[in-house]
Amino acid sequence: MSSKPATFDGAPPPGHINFGVGQPSADALPLDLIRQASEHFLASAQPLELNYGVREGDERFRDALAAFLSRHYDSPARAESLLLTAGNSHALDFVCTTFTRPGDTVFVEEPSYFLAFQVFRDHGLNIVGIPVDENGMRMDLLEAELARTTPVLIYTIPSFLNPGGQSLSAERRRRLVQLSEQQGFLIVADEVYQLLSYYGPAPVALGSLAEQQASAQLENGGGQDSGRGSILSLGSFSKILAPGLRLGWIQAPPDLMARMLDNGSLNSGGSFNHYASHLVRQVLEQGMQDAHLEHLRELYRRRVEAMDQALHHHLADLARWQKPQGGYFFWLQLQQDADSEALRQQADAFRTGFQPGPKFSSTGAFKHCLRLSFAHYNEDDISEGVERLAALLQA
Amino acid sequence: MSSKPATFDGAPPPGHINFGVGQPSADALPLDLIRQASEHFLASAQPLELNYGVREGDERFRDALAAFLSRHYDSPARAESLLLTAGNSHALDFVCTTFTRPGDTVFVEEPSYFLAFQVFRDHGLNIVGIPVDENGMRMDLLEAELARTTPVLIYTIPSFLNPGGQSLSAERRRRLVQLSEQQGFLIVADEVYQLLSYYGPAPVALGSLAEQQASAQLENGGGQDSGRGSILSLGSFSKILAPGLRLGWIQAPPDLMARMLDNGSLNSGGSFNHYASHLVRQVLEQGMQDAHLEHLRELYRRRVEAMDQALHHHLADLARWQKPQGGYFFWLQLQQDADSEALRQQADAFRTGFQPGPKFSSTGAFKHCLRLSFAHYNEDDISEGVERLAALLQA
Repeated sequence: MSSKPATFDGAPPPGHINFGVGQPSADALPLDLIRQASEHFLASAQPLELNYGVREGDERFRDALAAFLSRHYDSPARAESLLLTAGNSHALDFVCTTFTRPGDTVFVEEPSYFLAFQVFRDHGLNIVGIPVDENGMRMDLLEAELARTTPVLIYTIPSFLNPGGQSLSAERRRRLVQLSEQQGFLIVADEVYQLLSYYGPAPVALGSLAEQQASAQLENGGGQDSGRGSILSLGSFSKILAPGLRLGWIQAPPDLMARMLDNGSLNSGGSFNHYASHLVRQVLEQGMQDAHLEHLRELYRRRVEAMDQALHHHLADLARWQKPQGGYFFWLQLQQDADSEALRQQADAFRTGFQPGPKFSSTGAFKHCLRLSFAHYNEDDISEGVERLAALLQA
Repeated sequence: MSSKPATFDGAPPPGHINFGVGQPSADALPLDLIRQASEHFLASAQPLELNYGVREGDERFRDALAAFLSRHYDSPARAESLLLTAGNSHALDFVCTTFTRPGDTVFVEEPSYFLAFQVFRDHGLNIVGIPVDENGMRMDLLEAELARTTPVLIYTIPSFLNPGGQSLSAERRRRLVQLSEQQGFLIVADEVYQLLSYYGPAPVALGSLAEQQASAQLENGGGQDSGRGSILSLGSFSKILAPGLRLGWIQAPPDLMARMLDNGSLNSGGSFNHYASHLVRQVLEQGMQDAHLEHLRELYRRRVEAMDQALHHHLADLARWQKPQGGYFFWLQLQQDADSEALRQQADAFRTGFQPGPKFSSTGAFKHCLRLSFAHYNEDDISEGVERLAALLQA
């Protein structure tokens, strides 16, 4: 009835090409597929499916999700290891409520996703950044920091880091898990980009390593030899289906699952997002998610190529970058004396935009860096936007 | 594809009539209405409506909700005073994250909703119970407690208390707001039963009083004379539409709204439940919520009458109770030496059930009390269940 348009926070003005927007474009949002899923669910739905759900999330949804993850991750996923969440931002908040207390310290990659920092600050947590290189978080610097401080958790985006695009190497993944088990901190792995791998398989998911911890606990009956679980893998349908559904999951071993299921909000409200799970169950069961994922990989690979080419064409002398193998982002390093925050102020005049580097730092570093998302625009717009960016940098 | 049934935590075995279940019955869950809303939304939806939403919640949804509340509450609601939540349990957790720190004290009604206690404990809060009488929280005892301790917030269910069914009188509402403004604590009003009034209008909603605080702030430009806001009114579609949608709202004045919009999880994820808000917007705009509310009031009024009659018939000599004027619950007081927890253990043998009184106490009191929900069963089942309950009490 109302004619007001749907919008989002920070939506750019018409005609602007703002690479700061880390959101899918309209043609990556599968409305027809959601329509089919909805019709299929509602055709045979029962009234009680509109009631409160079980805390873990509907069993049929978790079965379908486990089958999906078993196809796409490297090892079988158990439905029992999966907790339904209302998306990754909610999951991160929920993990903080469940496992942390104000004054605790969390380690993050330096640079890392800036809005995660705000969630940690909401919970009164101290943030310590561990620098990354092209293989992700540096284990030598992590171990040096661990000698000084034991964090309650390490927040990592192991595959296709936001903002850097690089992935934690297989060897470092093993080392990180080993350290977490030895020293008793949690690994909170934000794996929302895990399935958005454009040039071959992604490194093994931390979710799969969580299943190994689950196996150890289940085989040993949860006794002393079972080992304490340390991995929480956070996944989401926001990047592979539709953010507005607010649906995701946490994959974790039984001991950590038990602690999460004790949560008061979950006990009171039942499943964190029951209705959305009915729709996504249809999407999963009918193979529509697999097909859409394949479509997205092709769509985004073309955008990676377009941005890489445009950068080479317009910015080869002004910036350095690594072409990302997956995810949403390019991370540009300008000359050392560049000021990305000042540039951002001037970007509107060039009808372009980006996220300035210091946002991604726990200490305000990376002043000479900026993040570009290629997810929200098609190839033509990407070329045009990079040209405008070059004009800004040369102004 | 899977044949597993939808279920919920604590679902009673077949043939049992468990008045412990505080959930709507199948015939109170309007599947056809959700189907219509979904079809209507999807017929003209745009792909970007599947994207992240704005933090406050979709503007069209909040306009429709404000119009609905303006019709059903005593005074006009502003869309600007409404924040979309993922249901009341989520809202309560979110309020704790935003406004409290571990070690803070919260006051609750004694007795009150037991699962709220668990949310407060998740956040490390101390709980102090303020006794109620037939007019709700006793202001003399509240003021005596306030002389000793200033709480960060008072959690109240002002209309149709869970479990007692009584409502806070108009005079006490005014006094409570006055005290909150003078002493600087928040009122967190759980108003999920506000619209489920079966024998005439409910007392004025705290949400309407929050609008008065909003007016004062808006008229005075938010300056010193504007007064600090103290009221957060929590509403939900769980009790008037469908719990599985996980959709609710917080009605609050601008200063409190600003603090909530700073939340990291909200900034990262956009609207707390964007997709569900599209469906419920249709329900609101097309008047379907008004009609369904009228249906529910009639349905539940018949169940109140059925339970009251059955109690008079079977339990007049064994228990005392007040017929509730709204909400979901009867609160029974047995003789002083009764043990409702022991009785609960024996209830399965009688194929009946209830929630024992001590659950609703911050100190384990009310051993001789029990809560019956009339919402989950029709009149015949209610009569039969109360007969079984009488048999249990006389065993």
